[in-house]
Amino acid sequence: MKTKFIKGGVTAPHGFLASGLACGLKKSGKKDLALIYSEVPAVAAGMFTTNKVQAACVTISKRHLKAGKAQAIIANSGNANCMTGAQGLKDAQKMAQAVARALGIAAGDVCVGSTGIIGKPLQVQKIEIATPALVAALSKKGSEDAARSLMTTDTLLKEVTAEIQIGEKKVRIGAIAKGAGMIHPEMALPHATMLCFVSTDALIGLPALRAALESAVEDTFNMITVDGDMSTNDSVIVLANGLAGNKPITVGSQAFEIFAGALRELFLKLAQTMVRDAEGGATKFAEVRVRGARTLGDARIAARAIASSNLVKFALFGADPNWGRIAAAAGQSPAHFNPKKMRIWLGTQLVVRSGTRTNVSQKKIEAVFAKKDISLTVDLGAGAHEATAYTCDLSTKYVVLNSAYHT
Amino acid sequence: MKTKFIKGGVTAPHGFLASGLACGLKKSGKKDLALIYSEVPAVAAGMFTTNKVQAACVTISKRHLKAGKAQAIIANSGNANCMTGAQGLKDAQKMAQAVARALGIAAGDVCVGSTGIIGKPLQVQKIEIATPALVAALSKKGSEDAARSLMTTDTLLKEVTAEIQIGEKKVRIGAIAKGAGMIHPEMALPHATMLCFVSTDALIGLPALRAALESAVEDTFNMITVDGDMSTNDSVIVLANGLAGNKPITVGSQAFEIFAGALRELFLKLAQTMVRDAEGGATKFAEVRVRGARTLGDARIAARAIASSNLVKFALFGADPNWGRIAAAAGQSPAHFNPKKMRIWLGTQLVVRSGTRTNVSQKKIEAVFAKKDISLTVDLGAGAHEATAYTCDLSTKYVVLNSAYHT
Repeated sequence: MKTKFIKGGVTAPHGFLASGLACGLKKSGKKDLALIYSEVPAVAAGMFTTNKVQAACVTISKRHLKAGKAQAIIANSGNANCMTGAQGLKDAQKMAQAVARALGIAAGDVCVGSTGIIGKPLQVQKIEIATPALVAALSKKGSEDAARSLMTTDTLLKEVTAEIQIGEKKVRIGAIAKGAGMIHPEMALPHATMLCFVSTDALIGLPALRAALESAVEDTFNMITVDGDMSTNDSVIVLANGLAGNKPITVGSQAFEIFAGALRELFLKLAQTMVRDAEGGATKFAEVRVRGARTLGDARIAARAIASSNLVKFALFGADPNWGRIAAAAGQSPAHFNPKKMRIWLGTQLVVRSGTRTNVSQKKIEAVFAKKDISLTVDLGAGAHEATAYTCDLSTKYVVLNSAYHT
Repeated sequence: MKTKFIKGGVTAPHGFLASGLACGLKKSGKKDLALIYSEVPAVAAGMFTTNKVQAACVTISKRHLKAGKAQAIIANSGNANCMTGAQGLKDAQKMAQAVARALGIAAGDVCVGSTGIIGKPLQVQKIEIATPALVAALSKKGSEDAARSLMTTDTLLKEVTAEIQIGEKKVRIGAIAKGAGMIHPEMALPHATMLCFVSTDALIGLPALRAALESAVEDTFNMITVDGDMSTNDSVIVLANGLAGNKPITVGSQAFEIFAGALRELFLKLAQTMVRDAEGGATKFAEVRVRGARTLGDARIAARAIASSNLVKFALFGADPNWGRIAAAAGQSPAHFNPKKMRIWLGTQLVVRSGTRTNVSQKKIEAVFAKKDISLTVDLGAGAHEATAYTCDLSTKYVVLNSAYHT
């Protein structure tokens, strides 16, 4: 892959500006309002939570993205604006309208994101009052401010940037994200208290942008789990303004593979950072690879089942190589396999062959679990497909952090 | 319901004896081998884990129950005899054979249960050596010994007994169980590191016994969750020896309703005790009632989704009435509903109506969550079906207990 990682975040691509500031939604006085703006209209695509309970921002952004174009994204932290009824929808619209007014663009070209507590009316006036200052602060150096403004319980800043070569032209992709708890992959869409906003100066058609987005999300945000719960606000939105001047990227071309591959690499970095973060509550990071699956779907579902198992997560926390829990979690998933053909590796140590324990020493497998980064591999012996999920441990600290988030 | 709760456990019904002792599988020297025996052959039915990874005892008991009859159940704690390959199957058969020899019955009439660590070869000789003493110890007072011999991380003894009137005759049902962690309901079978053995002197046909068992499990063991993980060893086995001399119970009769109802009540008590126990790690108990569902399946799946949510469990632990997590968990489930019609009660306090927050004071809902026993009710507004699930909080203590079970 020819992806080169650079600095700059969402303002690295040509024609993008960003800003972030504190408008007063967070009691702490920390930054809580972010804006990303493309100087020219951009092709745009989004993916959103599949939770039936959806925040107002998801409803509005979906609506605004129907035509496949957008020019700005405004997002607040400190309030999810979810389960806030008709007023919540109006408030999300007001966010888009405030940005549209200040930038002189159409409100339908503005996407909206929110993250924070569910069920509290949004103090939208604070956002409306701050929007002119937010627009005035837009700059080529504003990516980090925007990223910081998305953070809630995040302890790590999530910002990545890539540069790829498409024909004669250099194309850049920048992304900022937030996400730490309430993270769980499922089905074909991202799940998390997760926002990810992507800018690129690639010249790319809407079908190609959508295809690249879906494939990248599938292998990354959909393969991480923190606590098994799916958020009501998850959104991944990409704006592609075409200013790199490359030959248009179309589905199936070599350029498409390069672009989609870079997007996947960016998302993987962000997704892994979300897992390592886990609101500061994770002490271990594990890569769960399932191979030998009959179908790709089986590989994915088994990997996610193992990664989501509380008992596996407790074992990671306790540095206890209790591999029976890995086998039980795989067996609990709908993936098809014959346990008698199952093999399990902890790190590089083969601990289960033909469904029974090998002679590997307890000492060796304990050494694997003593590390901070752990790789678990399960071969289902049922086919040739494979998938990888990413997870963290479930620590006492994580429990404490999440038992008093509300109050 | 005419169920009367009495004492006596599995030896309360006519013709049943039980015993339990320490054969040396547990390093602690505590009791680890249990036996239940009916003096006459009994009609027998069982339900088992749906995990694809199944312990040897499950394979053997299923095989022995095919003909719908049995006369004894032997069970050990301290080793799950799971993922132990062909040797594990031989060892489970040896357990049945040892009992058969000592009692002078057929090995095919003996069911087997195991619980403990996965993947360690069973020291079956210890069981074989102890079996004659186990048989010699059989008595009408042996139920508690048998129940204690099943315990692993359990902190509460699980033993219940009921007496019902079938026509002119008194019929008794006794049950012992173990189960604390690795408990999660799913589909149509019990899931848990859960063993439940039931004796009854009811005269009942095999179809009626199977129907009563299935319906009782569905509303009880299948509606509890502790950590979301499904065991490889779950077994519920019922022996009905007919010595009460009642008119045979057949499906659809009034006597069937009484019998099935009593079985359900017994299982509910055991299931709730498992949740309250949670290996001594639970500080809260919650009943999650979902009503207004379009189908019974929807009601069950939504109730279990809420009960299984880690974030809901963290909120219970933190006494934090974060009802947004309840709504999000319901929305994440496949149950059909329109969030705009959703209502949520914490205790008797209506906190969400028409999908948005009511004016109930924060103080009132905090008072609900301050209690040890909490009831949560969600009306999906989509129909007339309802179901109840039972759960506990996810405490720091539970994490610590489960992070070092293996070593």
